[in-house]
Amino acid sequence: MPITNKISEAIHHRNWKELKGVVPFLEPSELAGLILDLPNGDQAVLFRLLPEAVAAQTFSYLDHDVQQSLMAQLGQREVAQLLNGVSPDDRTAFLEELPAPVLQRTLQLLTDDERAVASTLLGYPEHSIGRKMTPYYVAVQPDWTVSQVLTHIRRVGKKSETITHIYVIDSEGRLIDDLGIAQILFAVEEVTIEFLMDRQYVSLRVTDRQEDAIAQFKRYDRAALPVTTDDDILVGIVTADDILDVIEQADTEDIQKFGGMESLDLPYTKTPLLQMVRKRASWLIILFIGEMLTATAMGYFEDEIAKAVVLALFVPLIISSGGNSGSQAATLIIRAMALKELTLGDWWGVMRKELFSGFLLGTVLGSIGLLRITIWQNLGWYDYGIHWLLVAFTVFFSLIGIVLWGTISGSMIPFVLRRFRLDPATSSAPFVATLVDVTGLVIYFSVASILLRGTLL
Amino acid sequence: MPITNKISEAIHHRNWKELKGVVPFLEPSELAGLILDLPNGDQAVLFRLLPEAVAAQTFSYLDHDVQQSLMAQLGQREVAQLLNGVSPDDRTAFLEELPAPVLQRTLQLLTDDERAVASTLLGYPEHSIGRKMTPYYVAVQPDWTVSQVLTHIRRVGKKSETITHIYVIDSEGRLIDDLGIAQILFAVEEVTIEFLMDRQYVSLRVTDRQEDAIAQFKRYDRAALPVTTDDDILVGIVTADDILDVIEQADTEDIQKFGGMESLDLPYTKTPLLQMVRKRASWLIILFIGEMLTATAMGYFEDEIAKAVVLALFVPLIISSGGNSGSQAATLIIRAMALKELTLGDWWGVMRKELFSGFLLGTVLGSIGLLRITIWQNLGWYDYGIHWLLVAFTVFFSLIGIVLWGTISGSMIPFVLRRFRLDPATSSAPFVATLVDVTGLVIYFSVASILLRGTLL
Repeated sequence: MPITNKISEAIHHRNWKELKGVVPFLEPSELAGLILDLPNGDQAVLFRLLPEAVAAQTFSYLDHDVQQSLMAQLGQREVAQLLNGVSPDDRTAFLEELPAPVLQRTLQLLTDDERAVASTLLGYPEHSIGRKMTPYYVAVQPDWTVSQVLTHIRRVGKKSETITHIYVIDSEGRLIDDLGIAQILFAVEEVTIEFLMDRQYVSLRVTDRQEDAIAQFKRYDRAALPVTTDDDILVGIVTADDILDVIEQADTEDIQKFGGMESLDLPYTKTPLLQMVRKRASWLIILFIGEMLTATAMGYFEDEIAKAVVLALFVPLIISSGGNSGSQAATLIIRAMALKELTLGDWWGVMRKELFSGFLLGTVLGSIGLLRITIWQNLGWYDYGIHWLLVAFTVFFSLIGIVLWGTISGSMIPFVLRRFRLDPATSSAPFVATLVDVTGLVIYFSVASILLRGTLL
Repeated sequence: MPITNKISEAIHHRNWKELKGVVPFLEPSELAGLILDLPNGDQAVLFRLLPEAVAAQTFSYLDHDVQQSLMAQLGQREVAQLLNGVSPDDRTAFLEELPAPVLQRTLQLLTDDERAVASTLLGYPEHSIGRKMTPYYVAVQPDWTVSQVLTHIRRVGKKSETITHIYVIDSEGRLIDDLGIAQILFAVEEVTIEFLMDRQYVSLRVTDRQEDAIAQFKRYDRAALPVTTDDDILVGIVTADDILDVIEQADTEDIQKFGGMESLDLPYTKTPLLQMVRKRASWLIILFIGEMLTATAMGYFEDEIAKAVVLALFVPLIISSGGNSGSQAATLIIRAMALKELTLGDWWGVMRKELFSGFLLGTVLGSIGLLRITIWQNLGWYDYGIHWLLVAFTVFFSLIGIVLWGTISGSMIPFVLRRFRLDPATSSAPFVATLVDVTGLVIYFSVASILLRGTLL
């Protein structure tokens, strides 16, 4: 069987192992020949499985027509599906970044829809800047005159998403400066770009996380920022209005995690019912299993409850106060971390602040609880027994302890998660509440056993 | 006492009532004379207290120097403080919008810091677009030629925040079109702007809510949008990067409300400790008082608990499951509403979806609970008594009821709040949990009294 048939077959059977065994032993010139003989579609698949350096050389061996056709194939849904079927293990070895010049031209060639398809197989991780960039920008070279630049802008500027800035690249396509359009319009027409340059510029990398780009946009107040590969080759721009979506999506994820569930990939209205139930069930079950410890804890205190049923009455009130104060603290810290107002190193400052807040809040709630029992007892609305004052003080001290404990847990768990490189947003309100519920019961019954020993217990 | 002294005194004694008694009877020409005689600072205060139409006329009577000085005073902290001292009642009557031409020139005259000061007294409500706009844009008139426009851009474009679009205004300053810069660069130099116009444009109003502008930016993919007064007079632009802050701030508010507290006005690290405690305490207290109903409910079932202490063991587990499922549902709906994916009319669709989800989730948790009791009992880890199977089924049916009820409450409360024009984000996780805790107890003990009547109860 000729090698092209073998390769075609391997592609159609998704036999990546076999391909991996053959491809590395072929020269770029041989590969170029093979690609020529392969059917449309398969060409692109084979090409995308080459290591970056080999791909660049192979590409240069191909005729202009074949190059064009190859790039166009990268926007085809079938090709994308095939390549997306490559297992994650093979993927890291295979799908390296496209050679920059191929990438650049491919992006410009595809329509918006095709680009969305292609973006998954350009090798950029999900949520990376590479997935957000568009190829519509104006790039010029240092030896061009202002009048040449203006002519160029007239030619390509119409498609450009923004021409507030134009980008200066060297002969290899490396970004070396950005210039405000006003600088160009302001300059004498015979002057060369070199003369206007200060070689100071701001840029993003294709592999940067989209969320990290938010800070850059805020810091530099730009309508768009250029995007380069790791070798500084300019391959696209990202506009501020595209970053709006990034912020909203990131916040949606945080909010949903915070509400105690896996984040949905689609809007609520578009998420299939069963998929949504699955995403909600997983966290609900984890929380439920965690909360089962409360039954264990309560079981441990069953004798106390039997002796003093009055203690059971305040269980929901007391543990929910711990959960509420904990979820307040967790919310504040998680959001402050997301906005980069707080970093790991701030944990001690936060701890001090929360110790004080927790104590104050606990005292306030404790006093209200104390007052509640006193009033109900003395107005005859409810009879908590002859030791009602001891019960009231049990509630008072328990609330101080539990609110303090909830506040500290809620504020520190996000730091712990971040320390272990987990997403702080996972320390959701329900998660903190569950944790505090179990420990809250222990605090409550411990305080009770101290205060009520010899009387009720 | 001459009238200028009287006015000066009234200003310094913040005697707005007296000013209100005098000012309406004066002619614009007289007012212009008075302003001339007033000391610096007082001039601006008096001017800002005039109704818009009178202010416009008075302004036109003043010399250019005095006009300039008056506008500069609007950026002074002292003037802002004085005017901010006007009580909200008087404010609506007094501080009308500045006449558009004055506004426009004032904005351009002030530095960024001064503009921030002035923004509070320009009469635009907090969170309105008026507070976010900058005056650095390029506006041209229809009878200008392209070459005139290019000269103009060279002159003012350097200060402009973006020149992706330039704005066409008529002789009264009304916005009548926007043109892409490429259209200008592409055109023949002798052509007039009129020739390029299509009179189609997108704009924001100064009084629009900042949050509503987010949608506009997303829809039109623009780097900047022009801002007009209600009479279509162009007064500024808002750039997409400034909207980034708006989104983050809006989301922070929602998240903090969702965490069960009033939103902070400042970042966590910059909020004074006592102010933060106050903001957290108010909601904690409300929730605590709501949660006190659990003690009442538990009191109502005290006899049942005394007879079957085993029931108390599962109280935290059962009510927290209702709270967790409720907070999941609330999070989903609140976020979908904030992103305008759901409107009031969608409540029935959501209800159907949540009925099904709630029933499914409840059955899952109920089964785990049933299993837990069965396993513990049969492996001898805990003795729930001879009627353990009845207890297990009480837990099973209660969980179905409570999770279903939590899911429905959590998803419907945001709709109810929105219906009454309240912020859906107020239906925070702790708020929903509190509500479900109380009703959850009733469900639990009702199921118990049905299933256990004649055996344990």
